[in-house]
Amino acid sequence: MTDYMTNLRVKLPATCIILEIIIIILFATLVEYDHDTDAKHWHEEMSKHNKTDYENEFYFRYPSFQDVHVMIFIGFGFLMTFLQRYGFSSVGFNFLIAAFSLQWATLMQGFFHGMHNGKIHIGVESMINADFCTGSVLISFGAVLGKTSPVQLLLMAVFEVTLFAVNEFILLSVIGARDAGGSMTIHTFGAYFGLTVARVLYRPQLDKSKDKSTSVYHSDLFAMIGTIYLWMFWPSFNSAITAHGDDQHRTAMNTYYSLAACTLATYGFSALVSHEGKLDMVHIQNAALAGGVAVGTAGEMMLTPFGSMIVGFIAGTISTLGFKYLSPILEEKLRIQDTCGVHNLHGMPGVLGAIVGAITAATATKEIYGDGLADVFPDLTGGNKITASFQGVRQAISLAVTLGIALLGGLIVGFILKLPIYGSPPDTTCYEDSIYWEVPGEEGGHEEMTTVPVEDVAKPLNG
Amino acid sequence: MTDYMTNLRVKLPATCIILEIIIIILFATLVEYDHDTDAKHWHEEMSKHNKTDYENEFYFRYPSFQDVHVMIFIGFGFLMTFLQRYGFSSVGFNFLIAAFSLQWATLMQGFFHGMHNGKIHIGVESMINADFCTGSVLISFGAVLGKTSPVQLLLMAVFEVTLFAVNEFILLSVIGARDAGGSMTIHTFGAYFGLTVARVLYRPQLDKSKDKSTSVYHSDLFAMIGTIYLWMFWPSFNSAITAHGDDQHRTAMNTYYSLAACTLATYGFSALVSHEGKLDMVHIQNAALAGGVAVGTAGEMMLTPFGSMIVGFIAGTISTLGFKYLSPILEEKLRIQDTCGVHNLHGMPGVLGAIVGAITAATATKEIYGDGLADVFPDLTGGNKITASFQGVRQAISLAVTLGIALLGGLIVGFILKLPIYGSPPDTTCYEDSIYWEVPGEEGGHEEMTTVPVEDVAKPLNG
Amino acid sequence: MTDYMTNLRVKLPATCIILEIIIIILFATLVEYDHDTDAKHWHEEMSKHNKTDYENEFYFRYPSFQDVHVMIFIGFGFLMTFLQRYGFSSVGFNFLIAAFSLQWATLMQGFFHGMHNGKIHIGVESMINADFCTGSVLISFGAVLGKTSPVQLLLMAVFEVTLFAVNEFILLSVIGARDAGGSMTIHTFGAYFGLTVARVLYRPQLDKSKDKSTSVYHSDLFAMIGTIYLWMFWPSFNSAITAHGDDQHRTAMNTYYSLAACTLATYGFSALVSHEGKLDMVHIQNAALAGGVAVGTAGEMMLTPFGSMIVGFIAGTISTLGFKYLSPILEEKLRIQDTCGVHNLHGMPGVLGAIVGAITAATATKEIYGDGLADVFPDLTGGNKITASFQGVRQAISLAVTLGIALLGGLIVGFILKLPIYGSPPDTTCYEDSIYWEVPGEEGGHEEMTTVPVEDVAKPLNG
Repeated sequence: MTDYMTNLRVKLPATCIILEIIIIILFATLVEYDHDTDAKHWHEEMSKHNKTDYENEFYFRYPSFQDVHVMIFIGFGFLMTFLQRYGFSSVGFNFLIAAFSLQWATLMQGFFHGMHNGKIHIGVESMINADFCTGSVLISFGAVLGKTSPVQLLLMAVFEVTLFAVNEFILLSVIGARDAGGSMTIHTFGAYFGLTVARVLYRPQLDKSKDKSTSVYHSDLFAMIGTIYLWMFWPSFNSAITAHGDDQHRTAMNTYYSLAACTLATYGFSALVSHEGKLDMVHIQNAALAGGVAVGTAGEMMLTPFGSMIVGFIAGTISTLGFKYLSPILEEKLRIQDTCGVHNLHGMPGVLGAIVGAITAATATKEIYGDGLADVFPDLTGGNKITASFQGVRQAISLAVTLGIALLGGLIVGFILKLPIYGSPPDTTCYEDSIYWEVPGEEGGHEEMTTVPVEDVAKPLNG
Repeated sequence: MTDYMTNLRVKLPATCIILEIIIIILFATLVEYDHDTDAKHWHEEMSKHNKTDYENEFYFRYPSFQDVHVMIFIGFGFLMTFLQRYGFSSVGFNFLIAAFSLQWATLMQGFFHGMHNGKIHIGVESMINADFCTGSVLISFGAVLGKTSPVQLLLMAVFEVTLFAVNEFILLSVIGARDAGGSMTIHTFGAYFGLTVARVLYRPQLDKSKDKSTSVYHSDLFAMIGTIYLWMFWPSFNSAITAHGDDQHRTAMNTYYSLAACTLATYGFSALVSHEGKLDMVHIQNAALAGGVAVGTAGEMMLTPFGSMIVGFIAGTISTLGFKYLSPILEEKLRIQDTCGVHNLHGMPGVLGAIVGAITAATATKEIYGDGLADVFPDLTGGNKITASFQGVRQAISLAVTLGIALLGGLIVGFILKLPIYGSPPDTTCYEDSIYWEVPGEEGGHEEMTTVPVEDVAKPLNG
Repeated sequence: MTDYMTNLRVKLPATCIILEIIIIILFATLVEYDHDTDAKHWHEEMSKHNKTDYENEFYFRYPSFQDVHVMIFIGFGFLMTFLQRYGFSSVGFNFLIAAFSLQWATLMQGFFHGMHNGKIHIGVESMINADFCTGSVLISFGAVLGKTSPVQLLLMAVFEVTLFAVNEFILLSVIGARDAGGSMTIHTFGAYFGLTVARVLYRPQLDKSKDKSTSVYHSDLFAMIGTIYLWMFWPSFNSAITAHGDDQHRTAMNTYYSLAACTLATYGFSALVSHEGKLDMVHIQNAALAGGVAVGTAGEMMLTPFGSMIVGFIAGTISTLGFKYLSPILEEKLRIQDTCGVHNLHGMPGVLGAIVGAITAATATKEIYGDGLADVFPDLTGGNKITASFQGVRQAISLAVTLGIALLGGLIVGFILKLPIYGSPPDTTCYEDSIYWEVPGEEGGHEEMTTVPVEDVAKPLNG
């Protein structure tokens, strides 16, 4: 079942070890503890500014960081275990590329978002940002799931993290957009980058693996672990790097209500469009999360609770309808084989979130925000202040820039990944763990094995 | 397998969408950010009262909120996956009715617990309270699990949330009881309401689905995910809305020790009463949690750690014995088919918790609580102060009121739910996902499917 | 399948109930709320020292506590579910002995680490310490997994918790070592204690259960839940009891980067040494965690991010190679049957962590730490100050003491546990749930059962 091509005995170790050595050298040269993590500086800070320990950034953000961390490793990892024979790879490759990406993102985001005397300063906020960037890579992973080798995925992460940091820098620092929960920087970017890569890697013969591209009963339950964790902790995701106080509080709450409304829309439309009025696990596992994506930009703004609900409701609706009607078209006409349907969960809801953010920003007033305006829209106050409408324009431009960089970047990276040197699986063995993993029950693996996976048992009975 | 009756193509979408639209309209009319979530008000608050950002309620309660959130969606959801063919519904309907209930609860609790100039103010505390109320609905769901359609469940939630808010209002605001962890408001109410509904919905022919009412090996492991999360985060549940400082701290610790003692009692009595001294998963999955229920009222009081342990030990004991000896009687004599045994986990331990709370309150003194008395028992200090014994009487009356409202409410709602218009499953197909879900491996679902669930494989071999 | 010997109807209830009664009596006599949990004392504290509620220790440590709690109950519990027929026992016995150990640890650590007027004071910090001590017991559990009865495990916990507290007292209070994340006190101690017990309990005929000692597809996925939770929350584990402010912040971040680097090393070396370049789940599930163990001592120090990565990388490498090359030798030559490979995950990385800690301590200067030196190394400042090199010597001595107490203690306890009175399983039925649990699908259990576990289905087809 395994031929020379997919044997990674040299390629994967070389890739992992070389990348880690490069990272360690760059960290040694360039990275320092920031003022809240460095023993000396924090104590200087405390005596100079009369601060106390509970003002350390750690206490404002670490609980949110941990929730985000769970979303990245459990949420994304288990969400993708829905495939019947790809659970090891879903959780395991997710684990690998996330562990790599968060290190690489620390460096790339550090380069682009300001060095301090030639050094990158890190602390809990950079950890959250690194996890965010990782999230974007994992979204793209969802589009190519089952059709790529871990070496390809690591390489994709190298490029995608870099482009993410460039795009984020342009949006937040050059254009001056606001995007705390990453509707644009994370979701739109990750989705359209990944979809473009999937387009370039199009496999006309993928039907040969079709029997493995579906779920089984237990794999769908494992996937629900991922779904529910993403759903529960999304309020922490969107609020993790907003300003202290009311901003974190409001963002979390807006996201909470957006997701709740989104869930009702998803169940409603799933039953409406499915076979015999039955609910479809694909919708529940994915579309119910679209409400979190869609308030990623506007969540920190004074969107109001009912405004959040309307956004969530629309997001759940378009996401469910996307799975039903748009995904087949994307595959047949545009030749985009989007394994997890990231276009429905991250693509369209991300664009929706960007638009909602632009509109909400354009309607901001001092009346509504009071002195809190400076936290949400720093450029609307102070010396060189701009108008709210102009902030809205910035947001809209940012969406266009994000789409452009994602599509162009995905195109180039797609062609790099298309080279036949990374051990990617043959068309007949996509969505299959045993190509990269020692799978219990395989011949030759364990001589004394008396068990076989459910699927193999079933074949002789049904076939 | 599916006939017109259980086809929800119209009913479920209509219910979800109409309910969500009503909620959005009511939120638009009635709900506002509270002073800690509103940009303008929080900044006014900070300058007026010389507050700093870390005094925002968010930092006191958001980590607890997230733990409670995990209990509601993962804890309850997976606890109910023990049934072999009802995992999609357990997690999925739990998800749906919880997402609905938390929105509806925000409104109902807002109505009853004080409007501010005609507006309901919301923030992290209202989010916790909404999750609490949702917990009560999910307890009732446990009693009717496998025998109800999602439309029925949503309707039950509409009524139960409303009655919950009424009961909570009477207990906390009219009578002046204390019940931070909800032994009465959440557990006793949810259990006896649900049991009464189950009684009204009694199915004499339920034996026809008996083969699906048991667990299989993997479904029991999924259920343990639910159990362990509920167990771990119960300290956060009971302490989530207690007063700041020592109160939250003490409540969490009392719950921690109560649960630990409860677990030893559960294992001990499970081995004692089971077949050949073997442990029974049903006991471990459920009775080990009774210690959290039983300190729901007294947890915030000066119960002492060993007092908490005694309560937990008793709770684990009665809960395990209840599963063994009382549940069969309830089913045979009282005709209550309590799928998850909520009477043993929430009913009896809830009543125990109420009694323990009454006794602990009645023995409170300024000696023991010092200036902390005002936090736990506001009415025992100040102008119109009452005696501790009277506080105990209040607690006892509250238990009686809760039981009354739960039983009467459950009776009425049960008859409403009995109408044959909600697509509830026939007696032969209870505890079965495929009636409401597209289940992988089903005929007609996926033509190319080469897998069947374990159970179906097993039949020809064993049958 | 079950004979008198393994029937626990009397032994297990007696053990559980007697132990719990002893604990309750000791708590009643000896344990009190500390000043942050006691209503009266905290309010006195606030008025005396002009403190505010958010200075309560609860807010500094409770989120970390909950993360540690998840590691203990979900992390350890599910990590061990990899065995195909031992999932109930893995999660269930983990649950039982953890619930017991945390109570017993509160007492033992309280005795040794300072009584206040004859009373043990407890709060969130003692809860974390109790969970830490429990972690050590669970590590030892990993070494004997599948070969011991729950009565044996409880007895092991009684002794191990006691010895843990003695060792911890010698290290931290007598010698003056630093070990916030427990590379020595938790990991080295737990591993070598457990391995020695496993050596004494050596079963020459264990091959008879060999068919059950491997994993199946789904059991490996359940185990990944444990792995990922341990991995994600390890930063909270190592930082849970470090000093406030920069210390907690820095420790969490060092651990985060150590684990990330460790993961890349693990994937690289797993593919390098495995069959056909495939990844081995055993490595991923375990070795990827070694980076957390290895910065348990030095994590709170100014290890630098790249220093943490180097340590993590080495830890992942030796752990993976240990699974591949050392474990078979330990079993064949030293007759240590280490079920979970705790020597590779906790033993060697723990020793590595102790050495890294000694070196990092020996190179500490006021230059680097500034005023923060007093938090990390109190004895390097103040009146009777010592040199950094001497602190390094203390650390090294502590490692030797830990190994000595673990080996000697494990030897004695091993012989106590070898007595044939605890209902331990016969050689033919190790790694098998059905000996201690009612397992669904067993004959006599459920007459109407139409399902059998996957494994049993497979036999007639393959055999």
